[in-house]
Amino acid sequence: MQLESLLKAYGETTDRTISARIPAIDQPPGRLHEAMRYSALAPGKRLRPALVFLSAAAVSADEVPGVELAAASVELVHAFSLIHDDLPAIDNDDLRRGRPTCHRQFDEATAILAGDALFALAFRMALEAPNGAAVAAVLADASFRLVQGEAQDIYAEGTETSPEVLVFIHAQKTAALIAATCQMGALVAGADAETVEHFRQYGEKVGLAFQIADDILNVTATAEALGKASGSDAARGKATYPAAFGLDQSRTMAQQLVEEAISLVPSEPLKQLARFSIERVS
Amino acid sequence: MQLESLLKAYGETTDRTISARIPAIDQPPGRLHEAMRYSALAPGKRLRPALVFLSAAAVSADEVPGVELAAASVELVHAFSLIHDDLPAIDNDDLRRGRPTCHRQFDEATAILAGDALFALAFRMALEAPNGAAVAAVLADASFRLVQGEAQDIYAEGTETSPEVLVFIHAQKTAALIAATCQMGALVAGADAETVEHFRQYGEKVGLAFQIADDILNVTATAEALGKASGSDAARGKATYPAAFGLDQSRTMAQQLVEEAISLVPSEPLKQLARFSIERVS
Repeated sequence: MQLESLLKAYGETTDRTISARIPAIDQPPGRLHEAMRYSALAPGKRLRPALVFLSAAAVSADEVPGVELAAASVELVHAFSLIHDDLPAIDNDDLRRGRPTCHRQFDEATAILAGDALFALAFRMALEAPNGAAVAAVLADASFRLVQGEAQDIYAEGTETSPEVLVFIHAQKTAALIAATCQMGALVAGADAETVEHFRQYGEKVGLAFQIADDILNVTATAEALGKASGSDAARGKATYPAAFGLDQSRTMAQQLVEEAISLVPSEPLKQLARFSIERVS
Repeated sequence: MQLESLLKAYGETTDRTISARIPAIDQPPGRLHEAMRYSALAPGKRLRPALVFLSAAAVSADEVPGVELAAASVELVHAFSLIHDDLPAIDNDDLRRGRPTCHRQFDEATAILAGDALFALAFRMALEAPNGAAVAAVLADASFRLVQGEAQDIYAEGTETSPEVLVFIHAQKTAALIAATCQMGALVAGADAETVEHFRQYGEKVGLAFQIADDILNVTATAEALGKASGSDAARGKATYPAAFGLDQSRTMAQQLVEEAISLVPSEPLKQLARFSIERVS
């Protein structure tokens, strides 16, 4: 199957799995459940769950029942982190994926709690995946690093950020969760420790490349193409790769990371996905 | 050992366990770690961790290595929920346990993220306890219910709340996590399913009694004794037991719940603790 069709199928499975587990809107508190659905099922690429599916498929030729639970759990953590990052006290964003952010569509209290509830649900689902305890532990570690990265990002705003700190922030904020998806996929498929480590490294590199591409897009793309305000990072004095290294060198670094990632995994779709992660800016 | 000395010892072990796992303040992002410590190690009764220890001790005569990880994980979830509940967009409280709330002491962004980080760390630690996958699953379910209860509580503010909805809110918001502590204690000690269920029921009843006592105190105690503004529930139009049932009937209901709880567990300290949970208002 072509990568695009694969991603579409994985995304649909992920959304179905998530939708089945968020309580219905007619169950109290309905507004909370509505906000959870609004954010977790928002249109998106579902890149992280796809990496779980693809990593599992790269390890096990047979289908792995329950892999969709690990995939969905990662998407829930991603959705939780976006909701909280968008809050007025943090990034104060009005748009996300082309739609009002959760706190703009509902209210701030609902957004905070919807994020919290998605986070709790994520762990519940991760634990039900094959090798659930190990899968959930990886998810918890990555979530912790993600929050650390977001905090570091805020504290660095408007200050002179060294390239070292910038790399640290991006590694924590984006690469940690993407690395976790690849580890989780390998774990549910029963991979040995060395293989899991290769998938982790692949994910770390792709995640970093992806974040660099995001930084570049924030500078070069239109608001319409982004689904959020363009140039918002610069306006906010955010630490970004283009600001630290320039656009050209940032592109080169992203490409280098993708090449390294590709050498680590035997899977053709994972190699393609690594290239795809920076295609928008190459 | 007397209950009071036991609680003190359990509290100290919990704090040591938590302190060892929150990264140091001189590690970036230090402000985040400082806020985590400020809230998770704030002076407090550590009632929830004590219930984990006491439930484990009631099941197993031998000490259970690792029980302190489950105990600490529950306290972290409790601390996370307090930080988020206190936020301006939710309860907008300035004082907690007699000190400035996390967002008043630090800032709102730090408070949101410190809560998130404590939540992630809680799952990581729960997974390391004996029977970790089961322990973490109970914690995730209870956390989800806790967030649902908080949301329901907000949505009920200023509206006419039926007694049924009130009981639902309190069951989700407070009793769910306390029931989870008792289940988790039983689980780490290797209890069978029937025993775990008895501990769950004990916790659910004690938790409900505890919340009723809290509601009563919010009406009757001084701000100094509470460590936060007295009468704040009424001022906010919150759904409370005294508002729905009157003070006398609320006291009777709490006592009834404690009696039922006591009949469910064979442990003398747990019986004492159940009585203690409403002592402040009897």
